[in-house]
Amino acid sequence: MKRFFNAQSVTVIGVSNSPTNLGRAIVYGLIRYEFQGTVYLVGAKGGSFLGFKIYKSVAEVPETTDLAVLLVPARVVPDILEDCGRKGIKRVVVESGGFSELGDDRKELEERILQTLDRYDMRLIGPNCIGIINRHTGLALPFMPIEPLAPAGNIGIISQSGGVGGCILNDLGAEKLGYSLFASIGNKLNVNECDLLEYYLVDDKTKSIFCYLEGIADGRRMMEIAMKGEKPIVLHKSNRSEISRGIARSHSASLAVDDFVVSAACRQAGIIRVDKQSEAFTLLKGFQLPPVRGKRMGIISRSGGHAVIAADAAAEYGFELPPLPEDLIREVEKSARAGVIRFQNPLDLGDVFNLELYKLLAEQLLKNPSFDCVLFVHHYQPVFDTQPSRNLIRSIPEIVAKVGKPLALCVFSTRAEIQFNRENTAFPIFTDVHDAMKALAASRDYFNRKVYHFASRRPTGLSPSNIRFPLASETAMLDPTEAGSILQSYGFPLAPWKLAQDEESAVIASKELGYPVVIKTASPSVIHKTDAGGVLLNLKNTEEVREAYRKVSQLGRKVIIQKMVTDNGIEWIIGGKRDPQFGPVVLTGMGGVLVEIIKDVSARVGPICHEEAIAMLRETRAFRVLEGFRGQPRANIDALADMIVNVSWFLHDFPQIKEMDLNPVLITVDKAIILDWRIALC
Amino acid sequence: MKRFFNAQSVTVIGVSNSPTNLGRAIVYGLIRYEFQGTVYLVGAKGGSFLGFKIYKSVAEVPETTDLAVLLVPARVVPDILEDCGRKGIKRVVVESGGFSELGDDRKELEERILQTLDRYDMRLIGPNCIGIINRHTGLALPFMPIEPLAPAGNIGIISQSGGVGGCILNDLGAEKLGYSLFASIGNKLNVNECDLLEYYLVDDKTKSIFCYLEGIADGRRMMEIAMKGEKPIVLHKSNRSEISRGIARSHSASLAVDDFVVSAACRQAGIIRVDKQSEAFTLLKGFQLPPVRGKRMGIISRSGGHAVIAADAAAEYGFELPPLPEDLIREVEKSARAGVIRFQNPLDLGDVFNLELYKLLAEQLLKNPSFDCVLFVHHYQPVFDTQPSRNLIRSIPEIVAKVGKPLALCVFSTRAEIQFNRENTAFPIFTDVHDAMKALAASRDYFNRKVYHFASRRPTGLSPSNIRFPLASETAMLDPTEAGSILQSYGFPLAPWKLAQDEESAVIASKELGYPVVIKTASPSVIHKTDAGGVLLNLKNTEEVREAYRKVSQLGRKVIIQKMVTDNGIEWIIGGKRDPQFGPVVLTGMGGVLVEIIKDVSARVGPICHEEAIAMLRETRAFRVLEGFRGQPRANIDALADMIVNVSWFLHDFPQIKEMDLNPVLITVDKAIILDWRIALC
Repeated sequence: MKRFFNAQSVTVIGVSNSPTNLGRAIVYGLIRYEFQGTVYLVGAKGGSFLGFKIYKSVAEVPETTDLAVLLVPARVVPDILEDCGRKGIKRVVVESGGFSELGDDRKELEERILQTLDRYDMRLIGPNCIGIINRHTGLALPFMPIEPLAPAGNIGIISQSGGVGGCILNDLGAEKLGYSLFASIGNKLNVNECDLLEYYLVDDKTKSIFCYLEGIADGRRMMEIAMKGEKPIVLHKSNRSEISRGIARSHSASLAVDDFVVSAACRQAGIIRVDKQSEAFTLLKGFQLPPVRGKRMGIISRSGGHAVIAADAAAEYGFELPPLPEDLIREVEKSARAGVIRFQNPLDLGDVFNLELYKLLAEQLLKNPSFDCVLFVHHYQPVFDTQPSRNLIRSIPEIVAKVGKPLALCVFSTRAEIQFNRENTAFPIFTDVHDAMKALAASRDYFNRKVYHFASRRPTGLSPSNIRFPLASETAMLDPTEAGSILQSYGFPLAPWKLAQDEESAVIASKELGYPVVIKTASPSVIHKTDAGGVLLNLKNTEEVREAYRKVSQLGRKVIIQKMVTDNGIEWIIGGKRDPQFGPVVLTGMGGVLVEIIKDVSARVGPICHEEAIAMLRETRAFRVLEGFRGQPRANIDALADMIVNVSWFLHDFPQIKEMDLNPVLITVDKAIILDWRIALC
Repeated sequence: MKRFFNAQSVTVIGVSNSPTNLGRAIVYGLIRYEFQGTVYLVGAKGGSFLGFKIYKSVAEVPETTDLAVLLVPARVVPDILEDCGRKGIKRVVVESGGFSELGDDRKELEERILQTLDRYDMRLIGPNCIGIINRHTGLALPFMPIEPLAPAGNIGIISQSGGVGGCILNDLGAEKLGYSLFASIGNKLNVNECDLLEYYLVDDKTKSIFCYLEGIADGRRMMEIAMKGEKPIVLHKSNRSEISRGIARSHSASLAVDDFVVSAACRQAGIIRVDKQSEAFTLLKGFQLPPVRGKRMGIISRSGGHAVIAADAAAEYGFELPPLPEDLIREVEKSARAGVIRFQNPLDLGDVFNLELYKLLAEQLLKNPSFDCVLFVHHYQPVFDTQPSRNLIRSIPEIVAKVGKPLALCVFSTRAEIQFNRENTAFPIFTDVHDAMKALAASRDYFNRKVYHFASRRPTGLSPSNIRFPLASETAMLDPTEAGSILQSYGFPLAPWKLAQDEESAVIASKELGYPVVIKTASPSVIHKTDAGGVLLNLKNTEEVREAYRKVSQLGRKVIIQKMVTDNGIEWIIGGKRDPQFGPVVLTGMGGVLVEIIKDVSARVGPICHEEAIAMLRETRAFRVLEGFRGQPRANIDALADMIVNVSWFLHDFPQIKEMDLNPVLITVDKAIILDWRIALC
């Protein structure tokens, strides 16, 4: 990727003298951003533009440039790429649209492109994008005219949509916040978000990353990259819903992925997912501050109302407001008139008109080791205090730089004043207390994140080697007896069971297992066994078993006789599925209404370790039930976590499993035992 | 209130020649806002200011003005009010701080003020506020200098905090959106938010209302006013959390109220509650548009990425995106080049450069009876398309006015361009797709709201008249047998039960009730009976009853023997409490984990009607269980709703009840029956 962003020479292909030619905008961009390298233009009609000669073909260009950028009709792209390949150009950006986003009939065009890339060992960004920018070298390729309002800085941007990416640049520009790299990736035929993320994470100019995606190229790789990285990644992944599928397909040829899995994967990998542009921008502003290391916050506000709102927001986002320490009070009292400040946190400075004191307070509070961060709210109306307020605001970045701790600055004034302040300081200014709080919370959560990498060692006691799945079956649903045997061979604890194919063997099996027993249909075609009357519980003797067999066998001759587990415990569910983007996904939640109606389910991409399984359980609201709810004893949470880990390995070991359910799993004070199960193959 | 806002003459009290005198700012305000009336100044030192004579006392003023505004030290406020009273001034605004927000020792000062108001039949706004503005008459009293950037318009503003109120005016000013009335109410010693809401709802210049509160003066009255009103009220009620209490108390002398009840009451009364300033402003922008009457939305976007984001947001906010109708397509095709537009909804116009066509499309879509509203997203970068884009944006308000249906306009560009557009059209411009969607959804929900007024007629079968509550009791908890008798007398169906005070009578009672039975302790001091071993179920014979009595009686001699209800059903909870602000509050949710861990609880202020109880049940996520979940039959929801109604009346009839719980109530296919109960008195 470095060869893209640090290109010293660029060939712009598709330039003409026509005033409607979009290629010219690329040339303008390189000039406006003061590209520190050499530019050549190519266009079939030749001529010149802005003093540059327009060569009629790539072959004629007197130099093999590091990079070529194409804005030509889709149908000629393969040929021109061939020209580039022959010329020895190894990196190309294709901005032209008209590929698979218009329909599958354009796939062939893409196929030819891929062959060319392969043949010449080239890499390609696009097609259907607005290209890339390196704000530090002036390499700016968008055909969309984006004024260089945002300065050079440390935010790296990846956007599948040129329009959305351009808007982030507008936002940055309006607040004079800087970026390092920008890439619009469109259909991501060759280079995808993972390639770029990997590069941004090592690029020394980039400190935080924003990524807008409509589809995910390789979810698992994205997770691995993020887990290893040490820079916050703010991901806006759209195309979440049924009704956005059509438009996403025709905009960037993106297919929908399971949105619930995307969210879970992000949480697991430490990626910060947002679903609003404005929220993304808010968080990026927060990451311009030094990291928030803890949850102890000091709030200073000139407006009492905003102090109340800030206290509410602090509670909402999990911050604590410790009392102001004595030594701080003494320090400040030296400078303040006695009695004008009521020393509580939030500190309301409404009655204090000496803005120098505000500065002192902000600095002292920020320095104080009892506080991890400060929220500083300043309200002024022009006429009053304009100059002192502007000075105060301008001094905040210095204080933050000096102390090296995070202070979020929230300013309320006329929009003209806010704009003035933004243009005169390269420091994030918030205009809503909740936004500032959210940004600080995101920083706190990121810098205190606990990321567990994918598990690399299979727990002892699991034996994948002896298991053979049936190769083909009429139905995707595995026969419950086969599924049971496989689960047991792998190492899962099932309640003791036996297959019975007629009434007599049902009676014999029941005696061998010992009463009470359960009879369940073993017919793979019955999905909701209980609803269908396919499960009868608590059978205490031969008579009851015979009667039950006669009922249940109406669904099929084969039944499972199972020892009835009468231990007290909690019914839990462990599920799993294979996701095309992420691989094995394990899910868990408390059985019954909680999973089915409340959707109190937690998910992870596997294989996972024990600690991750515990984190997963803690994420469910029903976790409190496991811990011992209303006088009940604590369930064996470790045994449950181990079983979740094992399911994640089971799914990892057998990619032929499409989905599975262990439902219910009974969790008692000493063990986790599977009472029913279901496996469907791909 | 009209006499406040339509005052033709004002006496400003507390003006002096000193440059630090804040009273002068009030005079400046009246001039800047071009007050259409007469102004007199009063200040102890006399002199003159801006050509106005400063009278030394109220008595000297040559006219009895409609209104007086005071900005003098708190301790002299009572005397000056007395002067105003003697002079015949009936309306006063007190902006001075230093009252109960500084502590309870200032209560006496407030007491004296209240007596004066009473004696002279005066009304007072404040103290501890920044006064009021009537933007249409130029009556502008804030001592805080607020430039008249926001024009005259139709938003009415009530703010308990001057600072927060001032910020809303800044926001309006920045977007050139207009307001009618503004009131900052501070400690609301006399005039409170209800008085103002009542007036704003009839004021013909006001079309929507924003209200910021830190405390609630009279929750029930606020609900009644809102229920009768026909204008949207957006309420930002802060001071929600434990940690905001201290600061709210010292900012505006506001006490905390039960935040859950506030939210429930707002929903019930059709008040739109928000908890962010920026969210309030977003919704107010939405209410500048014609009402959204339904959920069928058309989306037009110039940027494909924003079209995808908009589709996601539409799904999130419950809008439908019907396919574009044939006739619209034909109409547009007349003007569009064939084939350039793919007619789906959202409509991506990325490839269309004729902005006149955008206008046509917007108008046609808005006119089309198959659509209730339109979201129009426009993205442009200056250089390209600047003038056509500005023209397009300027034409949108005309289209909306002509068609009379809502179109939310979302613009992406540089902030300078957005600011330009905002300053050149008095029409709301959104800069985030989710915000626009949220605003449209709030309008849709408001204009399709179903508000049930408080029930006025007690359902037949309830008999409050014969019930006598014990007057005093050592513990607030009512004896369970007394509580049971009272509930039955009132008309509630309890599972048959009897009191037993020894083993023999327990056996006799069990026989009379018929086996199986339940034994429960009747000791009022045992709160969680089941946890304490105070409930034993399913006793089938004399032996079991004797053994059970011996166990349970360890908690107290008195026990309740109850017929064990063996019907299949769902265990539900109905609770109730008396709220100091709202009166009787009834709560309901599914028993067990759902209420205790998931907090899946719905609340209403009573008394309520049957329809409201049904709405309340529908609000719970567990409602699906009542409807018949996983093959179970539908429970008798009407019987449950009736019982909720009756609890709301019971609480209404007996204000001495502090809280009560019917838990569980068993809901079967044909009835609702109370299995256990608990009543605590105030």
